[in-house]
Amino acid sequence: MIVADFSMIPMGSGTSASRYVKAIHEVLKSSGVNFVPGPMSTSVEVESLEELFRVIDTANERLKEMGVGRIITNIRIDCRLDKEISIRSKLQAVRP
Amino acid sequence: MIVADFSMIPMGSGTSASRYVKAIHEVLKSSGVNFVPGPMSTSVEVESLEELFRVIDTANERLKEMGVGRIITNIRIDCRLDKEISIRSKLQAVRP
Amino acid sequence: MIVADFSMIPMGSGTSASRYVKAIHEVLKSSGVNFVPGPMSTSVEVESLEELFRVIDTANERLKEMGVGRIITNIRIDCRLDKEISIRSKLQAVRP
Amino acid sequence: MIVADFSMIPMGSGTSASRYVKAIHEVLKSSGVNFVPGPMSTSVEVESLEELFRVIDTANERLKEMGVGRIITNIRIDCRLDKEISIRSKLQAVRP
Repeated sequence: MIVADFSMIPMGSGTSASRYVKAIHEVLKSSGVNFVPGPMSTSVEVESLEELFRVIDTANERLKEMGVGRIITNIRIDCRLDKEISIRSKLQAVRP
Repeated sequence: MIVADFSMIPMGSGTSASRYVKAIHEVLKSSGVNFVPGPMSTSVEVESLEELFRVIDTANERLKEMGVGRIITNIRIDCRLDKEISIRSKLQAVRP
Repeated sequence: MIVADFSMIPMGSGTSASRYVKAIHEVLKSSGVNFVPGPMSTSVEVESLEELFRVIDTANERLKEMGVGRIITNIRIDCRLDKEISIRSKLQAVRP
Repeated sequence: MIVADFSMIPMGSGTSASRYVKAIHEVLKSSGVNFVPGPMSTSVEVESLEELFRVIDTANERLKEMGVGRIITNIRIDCRLDKEISIRSKLQAVRP
């Protein structure tokens, strides 16, 4: 399992991004990918980089359809080979 | 209020980072800054960039003291001038 | 054209990453993608997100083959719909 | 020496950011910090995190003065304790 988080910033569409973030969450729901919204980005849990990139590509297409003129995407990926990880296991590992 | 998230990746200290992340959380607790741990990064709520940078600088010093040879830090900052924001308001804005 | 930059941080493989970065550059060369190495990341110019993700996936596989136990990847993407962009045009736009 | 790169994305100010990026470069010039513009971000070389954060804070203030309603900043920092680094040394280390 790969854990990642990403944010997509619409430029040229005002200062509020919430309707775009909601649209991205709908894409994630439809895709069946496990995700957790955060204040700065959305975390996802995927089987492969291919799956991650497919949902990000779909989300990007959705924002284009909504008329966004420029999309700045930022992705952080944790691909760990020596151990099975998940959103839950990563949160548990840092609990005090 | 400024909302940000950040991650600090220790290089040269094995594949596990949880003890370093816990140490960073202790720095945040001591600083009195409101923070929320996430699977890929830690979100914080600060009064100013100065406050944000002070806690990150302190966290960086803590990792140095713990013997980390190289620290890769990644920070995302949301500085909004037209509206009051917080971790809570940002999460509420994207609820379905 | 989409412009992006990305960095891949190997964890558990010492503090030096240069041999891994060189391997990533070789992947980019083989792929035919236009790229520019930078001090903190590598910038690339691609026709589509699909092309970007394919080269990053291949680079990730290369690092796995080299024995890296954990790979932290960070990607920034500029997808502009209202204007044709390239690495060159973006650099020229901000020249003093 | 610490090497870092950062980007500041103005939201609510149209799709073009070049005049803001130029203003940031002027801030860097005035500060005396060594910097290299890139297609996705600006790389800087600083003596300390404090110096880095001071110039980013100043750049953020400049964008506020220019009337930007929301600024999304992304910073990557390489703080290496085991070796002296610079923008030049990092670029040389990955040359083929």
